[in-house]
Amino acid sequence: MSMFETISEQQLHGGIQGFYRHHSDACDGPMRFAVYQPPQAAQRACPVLYFLAGLTCTEETATIKAGAQRLAAELGLVLVMPDTSPRHTGIDGATGDWEFGEGAGFYVDASAAPWSMHFRMRSYVADELPASIAAHFPVDVERSGISGHSMGGHGALTIALAHPARYRSVSAFAPIVAPSQVPWGRKALPRYLGADPKAWADYDACELVRRQTFPGVILIDQGEADQFLEAQLKPELFDQACAESGQALLLRRHPGYDHSYWFIASFIDDHLRHHAEALDLM
Amino acid sequence: MSMFETISEQQLHGGIQGFYRHHSDACDGPMRFAVYQPPQAAQRACPVLYFLAGLTCTEETATIKAGAQRLAAELGLVLVMPDTSPRHTGIDGATGDWEFGEGAGFYVDASAAPWSMHFRMRSYVADELPASIAAHFPVDVERSGISGHSMGGHGALTIALAHPARYRSVSAFAPIVAPSQVPWGRKALPRYLGADPKAWADYDACELVRRQTFPGVILIDQGEADQFLEAQLKPELFDQACAESGQALLLRRHPGYDHSYWFIASFIDDHLRHHAEALDLM
Repeated sequence: MSMFETISEQQLHGGIQGFYRHHSDACDGPMRFAVYQPPQAAQRACPVLYFLAGLTCTEETATIKAGAQRLAAELGLVLVMPDTSPRHTGIDGATGDWEFGEGAGFYVDASAAPWSMHFRMRSYVADELPASIAAHFPVDVERSGISGHSMGGHGALTIALAHPARYRSVSAFAPIVAPSQVPWGRKALPRYLGADPKAWADYDACELVRRQTFPGVILIDQGEADQFLEAQLKPELFDQACAESGQALLLRRHPGYDHSYWFIASFIDDHLRHHAEALDLM
Repeated sequence: MSMFETISEQQLHGGIQGFYRHHSDACDGPMRFAVYQPPQAAQRACPVLYFLAGLTCTEETATIKAGAQRLAAELGLVLVMPDTSPRHTGIDGATGDWEFGEGAGFYVDASAAPWSMHFRMRSYVADELPASIAAHFPVDVERSGISGHSMGGHGALTIALAHPARYRSVSAFAPIVAPSQVPWGRKALPRYLGADPKAWADYDACELVRRQTFPGVILIDQGEADQFLEAQLKPELFDQACAESGQALLLRRHPGYDHSYWFIASFIDDHLRHHAEALDLM
């Protein structure tokens, strides 16, 4: 990892909203991400919350639409919002399908050609990005949390369950919890990981939580008017897996809310407080 | 005015974020606008705040980027965010220039051909839109406020000063206050209104406030790192005009903030509270 470039930095809520680009070894190419530094970061290292976006999104989506910075500025929480996949990979078939490829990295380390050349978002988000953040921003890496939406909720849950010592807190909005069992996952995982479902289990929150629990309550918010609830999300499967494995889970169902960022904006403050508590900010 | 169409409605902060389209007689064509109804609007008529966006923006811009709905939901304030001009007018030269034409209506009633056929945003925002809002949403029209950003700040100031009895409160972010004297206005006003500067005065806040003051404090926030501050905005001209005419003005200058919606998001809560106080919500 060498190149690190500031695309823009603007003042927001007394802190700095920035967009950056760096070279990723994991993805073998440039990656973009957004960082919000609260005012407190000018004085001291602050805890950090990673927020992973969903299908079709970029590093701009949650940055612009979630409205997380206002309370992050109050709490003293750094926000990191990466892109959802490598871009401009040149791989045939990597663009043009909103459910697979660019914009749809599913936070896996692809093992199947040609995707394994670039689509290694698990390593990027769990290893490489945090190292770069630690090198360039005033963060207290011992106090890290992770959250996300939809495919990004799947990313947050699976990364936290795979690396429970790295994160003190995890939450998700309308996450994909059982990709091995739903159309989005059944379409993407075989192409990224091969046809053997055993390989998919490392990227399936319902499977992972049966192997190892997370030391803390997992917060999940789900809108009941979510157009993807029944076919793709199935939070009841994760509820059941957590119950069976002894994982503490707070699953909240909200009547009337859909899958959009309006839903996220409505409950983002609750998630920030959930993380702030685990990160010793409250 | 006949056609009224709901494009979408989604739940947000316990209320409803909607996008709508209706026919405008003033603009002789369809116009889009966004309305946020806070939870209180399900029970009773609520005060209403109009927010006018700036150059290049649509009804989506402030709706998505300003982050106003969170506090509006707490206060019980309806938010109305119209588009910045008629669209698809078919007028030669109406597109392709971000400073003039579609997306740049300057909240004037154009008197010069061919713009006078469609570009009548003063009448649309001050007369026709409020009538349509009153007909279709639970608003207390006696309690209306108006705000805006940049060109939309110019719109808010000039409409409030032209109709001081219709609005109980007015505020602006980084407004154009003296279009007759700055490049944006000197480019747009002659084409919309003709070459005689006398016609421009009806759309120049510095001129209007010398004719008639607004019965209440005008709140203006201005970022000191605003890239348009010196050439286009010149808040000192409005400060001076207000001082000369006895207009109460609270002009706040914020070091480090630029012209973007990050600046608006940083201070939108202060503006909502400014309006809520005048609208008897606090």
